[in-house]
Amino acid sequence: MSYTYDYPHPAVTTDIVIFTVDEAMLKTLLIQRGSPPFEGSWALPGGFVRIDEDVDACAKRELAEETGVRDIYLEQLYTFGAVGRDPRERVISVAYFALVPCRGLSLKAGTDAANAAWHSVNALPELAFDHRDIIAKARERLTAKMEYSTLGLMFMPEEFTLSEVQSLYETVSGQEQDKRNFRKWLLALDVIEETGAMKTAGAHRPAKLYRLKDTTGVVIIR
Amino acid sequence: MSYTYDYPHPAVTTDIVIFTVDEAMLKTLLIQRGSPPFEGSWALPGGFVRIDEDVDACAKRELAEETGVRDIYLEQLYTFGAVGRDPRERVISVAYFALVPCRGLSLKAGTDAANAAWHSVNALPELAFDHRDIIAKARERLTAKMEYSTLGLMFMPEEFTLSEVQSLYETVSGQEQDKRNFRKWLLALDVIEETGAMKTAGAHRPAKLYRLKDTTGVVIIR
Repeated sequence: MSYTYDYPHPAVTTDIVIFTVDEAMLKTLLIQRGSPPFEGSWALPGGFVRIDEDVDACAKRELAEETGVRDIYLEQLYTFGAVGRDPRERVISVAYFALVPCRGLSLKAGTDAANAAWHSVNALPELAFDHRDIIAKARERLTAKMEYSTLGLMFMPEEFTLSEVQSLYETVSGQEQDKRNFRKWLLALDVIEETGAMKTAGAHRPAKLYRLKDTTGVVIIR
Repeated sequence: MSYTYDYPHPAVTTDIVIFTVDEAMLKTLLIQRGSPPFEGSWALPGGFVRIDEDVDACAKRELAEETGVRDIYLEQLYTFGAVGRDPRERVISVAYFALVPCRGLSLKAGTDAANAAWHSVNALPELAFDHRDIIAKARERLTAKMEYSTLGLMFMPEEFTLSEVQSLYETVSGQEQDKRNFRKWLLALDVIEETGAMKTAGAHRPAKLYRLKDTTGVVIIR
């Protein structure tokens, strides 16, 4: 235990961009800060890494503490390490992003948060620290990765229709999809299967319900 | 400057996986450690982030100090934050990977290194810390990204032939490519152009030389 690094050490935090799709908008969970710095501004859920805690474990803990959700898709995004990004002291943040299935979240504000709410990524309020940059990076990764992987399906609830998947992709990318091509692409990936049940909604024709196949994680499309 | 985080802070390092392709092998630069811990084992180039230094700047500095190269492709890879990964104290490492063009490097060992050398990624020596995991992660990112982007072209020297690009892809992926299909794919990307010159080598027919187009960074293939 000798040979330690004699110079001042930075603090390290994790911050988590939690995305969901709701009301045809890509939304992220923000917490209104109840104490300085940036009191009253909105910030990503997150907190300091404990000295005896894995960084990934810290992100999972913060996610559970601040939202009450577990077992959702969580991926390390990028480490933000500019000098001066926190007025208190040198703080390096390891950012993550998480995907919450549509209509799947029971919100629970953390103890140090005056308020927590979902905000449309297209209409963000005033944000603390460099959290606007972190959200921009997370959105960029999400949209890029949805084009070459099945990441987008992690947003879907347990059962869903093909139209619902298409709406989701259209919302996140901001681009309309051709129905026939989109379905062909989606089914060719071979990662979803019919449940056998149908969904009836309003005046629409009943639509087949699908679910992810058991073994599905995020599949890279080659 | 009040409200600092009262608990012990971890040290933060950057470690860099520097890849090149040489003698039909994917290689990475390693430094034999001249002091404990892991004295005599090989390790990635890297070092501690200074308290007044951006994390990205630290990676660039370490890269320049330990190899003498600048202005090569450098990308943040992943942050390794397990407890106990360094026997000295809690150390979180922000890992990067860099690509050195084939036959482009003038090697220079850093001051704290007894020795620096390129090692085939398929035949690594005993490694310090969790550096084997870091290299594995870097290789995974490299090979995945070469399939959906033009990242592989960052390995090429200023001028190259289409055969040389094909060999490079075959070496990194470990898979043979069909010559006709590979060329069609590569040229369709529209990121390289003929220099107007030819390359003659041994008994082979002269081959057209190409270069990256001026504006080319890494292009994601959609």
